[in-house]
Amino acid sequence: MIASKNLPFEEPLLRELAETYGTPLYIYDEAGIRRSAKVLKEAFAWSKGYVNYFAVKATPTPAILKLLAEEGMGFDCSSAAELALVKQGGWNGRRVFYTSNNTPDEDYRYAQELGAVINLDKLPYLEQVAKAVGGYPSRMAIRYNPGGEGGNDIIGRPGDSKFGDTEDHVLKALEKMRSGGVSEIGLHAMVASNERDPAAFGRIAELLRRLAERAAAELSLGLSFINLGGGVGIPYRPEEEPTDIAAIGQAAKTSLSPLNIPVYTECGRFVTGPNGYLLTAVTHGVVESYRRFLTVDTSINNLCRLSSAGPDVYHHVSALGKKTKETKEVTVVGSMCVNSDRMFKDRSLPADIKRGDLLVVHDVGAHGRANSTNYNGRLRCGEVLVRTDGSHKLIRRHENFNDLFATVEGL
Amino acid sequence: MIASKNLPFEEPLLRELAETYGTPLYIYDEAGIRRSAKVLKEAFAWSKGYVNYFAVKATPTPAILKLLAEEGMGFDCSSAAELALVKQGGWNGRRVFYTSNNTPDEDYRYAQELGAVINLDKLPYLEQVAKAVGGYPSRMAIRYNPGGEGGNDIIGRPGDSKFGDTEDHVLKALEKMRSGGVSEIGLHAMVASNERDPAAFGRIAELLRRLAERAAAELSLGLSFINLGGGVGIPYRPEEEPTDIAAIGQAAKTSLSPLNIPVYTECGRFVTGPNGYLLTAVTHGVVESYRRFLTVDTSINNLCRLSSAGPDVYHHVSALGKKTKETKEVTVVGSMCVNSDRMFKDRSLPADIKRGDLLVVHDVGAHGRANSTNYNGRLRCGEVLVRTDGSHKLIRRHENFNDLFATVEGL
Repeated sequence: MIASKNLPFEEPLLRELAETYGTPLYIYDEAGIRRSAKVLKEAFAWSKGYVNYFAVKATPTPAILKLLAEEGMGFDCSSAAELALVKQGGWNGRRVFYTSNNTPDEDYRYAQELGAVINLDKLPYLEQVAKAVGGYPSRMAIRYNPGGEGGNDIIGRPGDSKFGDTEDHVLKALEKMRSGGVSEIGLHAMVASNERDPAAFGRIAELLRRLAERAAAELSLGLSFINLGGGVGIPYRPEEEPTDIAAIGQAAKTSLSPLNIPVYTECGRFVTGPNGYLLTAVTHGVVESYRRFLTVDTSINNLCRLSSAGPDVYHHVSALGKKTKETKEVTVVGSMCVNSDRMFKDRSLPADIKRGDLLVVHDVGAHGRANSTNYNGRLRCGEVLVRTDGSHKLIRRHENFNDLFATVEGL
Repeated sequence: MIASKNLPFEEPLLRELAETYGTPLYIYDEAGIRRSAKVLKEAFAWSKGYVNYFAVKATPTPAILKLLAEEGMGFDCSSAAELALVKQGGWNGRRVFYTSNNTPDEDYRYAQELGAVINLDKLPYLEQVAKAVGGYPSRMAIRYNPGGEGGNDIIGRPGDSKFGDTEDHVLKALEKMRSGGVSEIGLHAMVASNERDPAAFGRIAELLRRLAERAAAELSLGLSFINLGGGVGIPYRPEEEPTDIAAIGQAAKTSLSPLNIPVYTECGRFVTGPNGYLLTAVTHGVVESYRRFLTVDTSINNLCRLSSAGPDVYHHVSALGKKTKETKEVTVVGSMCVNSDRMFKDRSLPADIKRGDLLVVHDVGAHGRANSTNYNGRLRCGEVLVRTDGSHKLIRRHENFNDLFATVEGL
């Protein structure tokens, strides 16, 4: 038997997409994205003024951002390019968070032009911001790093990370922001990645609450909001339970609701991750040598996460339209001339897979197309949105050689 | 004391390049590239007809390929895009090797149009090639995978790799090529990567010779050439000895000279790796939190090899114009919002480094700019060639937002 994962698209539609747009192809499910947005919103409905600032880096495609804005989301940007995407969508002011580190002056100015919440990475950058934008911005936050050399298996060893600052630095920054006239001051922390245990979020919420209470007690400073960060994970393996987002919301509530200020999150993966798919066609079928290789028309360049091919990086694969229950073990490979281009090692797939069949890679809606490369002269593939009514639309075209050679001088 | 690596450029020139073109910036040393090409050619001078087919994937920039062609090199391509680069340079015929796997029909046709040597990955693809190009190509090779589940520390476990085919399959393919009228038939193997032990190349040469002898004895088939592959490594750490390329050539000679046919290699890294540098400017200087961070204006997006930050991936860093012998330990970081963007962990650098100083990352001339990404909305940087006479020339411009958003539909 083959473990399975639900696919929101019928086989004829996927065949139509392959024929219309060509493969490989990223496909996003509007209905799924809206559903994820809604369950996230419900989980934090206890917080008046709750906003999820979608991490633009996860899926930096305007058509996807537009859906999320319609669901009430704001946007968390980490670079000038992400600010540019948000600007062209017409989003600004409180709708935008700018969470960067090691930031150039001009990027702070850009964020300030948009009226974004400038989320400071560390105390020493405060004077840079003030100088760059000519005074203190009206909306700011600072990123807290709880350190913890002893660590635990949820927050790991934040003290090894380049992000955020110590408790003392954070308190000093909050005080300076206040005396500098910042009208909305918030606290931020993001210490987990792809975490699914509600207790982990409870713990970071508790740390943020304590820090907010210290600011209130020691500085008489009332915060305007708490940003709990992102890092909410998704189940990649078919045997895993869905993420209990309601329990995550409740864990945060226990610590943060007494503060009675808006709580924000900046989830990316949770929202789009499970609702994006990579469609790829079988090129030669099974080729036997020392192993049984199944060849497909994408390589790891379109999904760099697979390059480690380690046990921790799993993406489920469905073969379309195969009725047989007989399986064979194959290693699925692409065309790149690098050893790491073995995408799925020793995977049980239907025994009758052949040239022209379509495979679907699950859970690649976040950090998928966004983190792709041209290594080996490989072209990055396009993206299609399947709307709630079943219609579809190209939202990013495939690359061609002109794109690939665009920066070469004297070609 | 700081361990050091030689820099072929004087400080004023590097400052001029930073000012003229901006940082971060890849810089290639024409004199060094030509020197590497010459020592490689000398090491294999015992083989009449020797050619190094430069692995285009290492540095797919036309101005670099042009230098290498002037040094007598051919080109090893792994994709249609690499064939296109070679075609626009005017190189074709025996000058071009096409070593691909899981290859589309149209790419075989493209290689055939160029008259390239089509290097078959596995026996089952032979009929595909013949069908795709309408008959057997006139020049072919096949890639041998020696397997070796027991493995050794040089060739690793080739049997786990997707590349090449078994001895029996190779012999069958050679026989079919001969009966199909292929006029030049060769053998290829490439089982090591970044290997510096001459004995490793001696061993693979020996395996290829034995296979050539079997073909002669059992099939009465005389090969036209042997392609020993690439995989010659370079010293990344300052304490490492130079690669003994002469000894590698001699090790190959012992096994292959009795065959009395041209020997080819397809070295990429050995030729351009040590002769390319990534120039980056210090942005904020040292910022202290749980660690001492030194911030620079490139991120791992411009040098993806650093993302593992493991002990095996080392790139040396020089700080320009620092006279002090006092050092401090810093972790060098860029601006990406990913944990892996800590490029050099706990590196001893001059104690007086400050904002505006320039750092040079060594040994990034191969698989450096070629394997870069736009993840987090980061722009890939440009490339400059410093000519033997000291003049310089932009050979790839920096990316801008138009490049980044070129494929977005409805922006």
